Amino acid sequence: MSRTIALLGGTGAEGVGLALRWAKAGETVVIGSREAARARDAAERIKQIVAGAQVSGEENVAACAAANIVVLTIPFAGHAALLKQIKPAIRAGTIVVDTTVPLAASLGGRASRTLGVWQGSAAQQCAELLPKEIPVVAAFQNLGAKLLSYDGPAECDVIVCGDHAEANRAVRALAVKIAGVRAIDGGSLENARILEQITALLIGLNIRYKAETGIRITGLPEHP
Amino acid sequence: MSRTIALLGGTGAEGVGLALRWAKAGETVVIGSREAARARDAAERIKQIVAGAQVSGEENVAACAAANIVVLTIPFAGHAALLKQIKPAIRAGTIVVDTTVPLAASLGGRASRTLGVWQGSAAQQCAELLPKEIPVVAAFQNLGAKLLSYDGPAECDVIVCGDHAEANRAVRALAVKIAGVRAIDGGSLENARILEQITALLIGLNIRYKAETGIRITGLPEHP
Repeated sequence: MSRTIALLGGTGAEGVGLALRWAKAGETVVIGSREAARARDAAERIKQIVAGAQVSGEENVAACAAANIVVLTIPFAGHAALLKQIKPAIRAGTIVVDTTVPLAASLGGRASRTLGVWQGSAAQQCAELLPKEIPVVAAFQNLGAKLLSYDGPAECDVIVCGDHAEANRAVRALAVKIAGVRAIDGGSLENARILEQITALLIGLNIRYKAETGIRITGLPEHP
Repeated sequence: MSRTIALLGGTGAEGVGLALRWAKAGETVVIGSREAARARDAAERIKQIVAGAQVSGEENVAACAAANIVVLTIPFAGHAALLKQIKPAIRAGTIVVDTTVPLAASLGGRASRTLGVWQGSAAQQCAELLPKEIPVVAAFQNLGAKLLSYDGPAECDVIVCGDHAEANRAVRALAVKIAGVRAIDGGSLENARILEQITALLIGLNIRYKAETGIRITGLPEHP
């Protein structure tokens, strides 16, 4: 069975970046947005860049209903609301991938600080808001939109955390379809809090060094 | 003026590792321990490995009083108590470097989880417990003892956080004396919480992959 990846809030830089990379890798992608027209526009732009790309655009809930891998690429301010909205549309067997970082900037604070999330992390909030049988996987927080927008290899490891081994494996397989990315088993979903905080650190480094930073774990094999 | 680096709790693997690396680089090092005899034993072992090493051993408070850079390499369980003990012995102009990670293992929990520290991080607790004029710098949390114990380059960046620019610079200069290490300006001391949590993530990876992991930031120049 072929898979379809929905990128909810996918008209933002992170969503478009992931869509581009996966479209290049031959994956079928649906961009989701609050407005279907904006989603379709983004899909058209990707088709112009990637010849033969299997990319379409839909309103978020419709995008979710069309997919078996649903990736959240939304600001934290809209996180809980979107999850409540899409919950009835998630099909059985769907994997939800949360890339969200609870940056303090969501509430007018700094992008180099995070908010405290009661559940421990945005990804754990996601898992709490969805039915228990939906596997939630935390990943891609540290892979900035600009790294994704380059044509060349993205110099960043993707650490994947989740409580469902098979879903974790599927997301790691999806991650390594992005050139340059190495996928690493980061353990259980509760560790997502660390991935989310690393993003705040990287944003601080980006500001301080006028750079686009990523992260590599040393001491692991090339294909862990 | 020549400098002396005290490693408090320096008979542990992290302290001995840092002492070895700095002794090799020609720095003057005092190992501190609760028992002066154990500190002197550790110093003797280092001298046997590094010919001509300027290394001695003292009880922690005496080591602190002899140094102008004081590095805490102690388990979190003894963090606050040691700081109260050494406070009167810290000389004016001394820089305190905190490598401590508040691992849950300090209280019988997992080494891949951290405790919540009221001040935000162990390093901020350190700053609160010391007089305001003593610069506290957070660094070396992610550079594991095993990486330090190798003879070759330590494959790890050292992210340095602190609120005193000059002290931060001094610690970055000390970090790059360890072969393989790149020193990165991690911003203000409050960011130490992220460095501390990264250690818990790396410990989890070490367990999962039977490895000795470290961290590299990508997208920065070779000598940031």
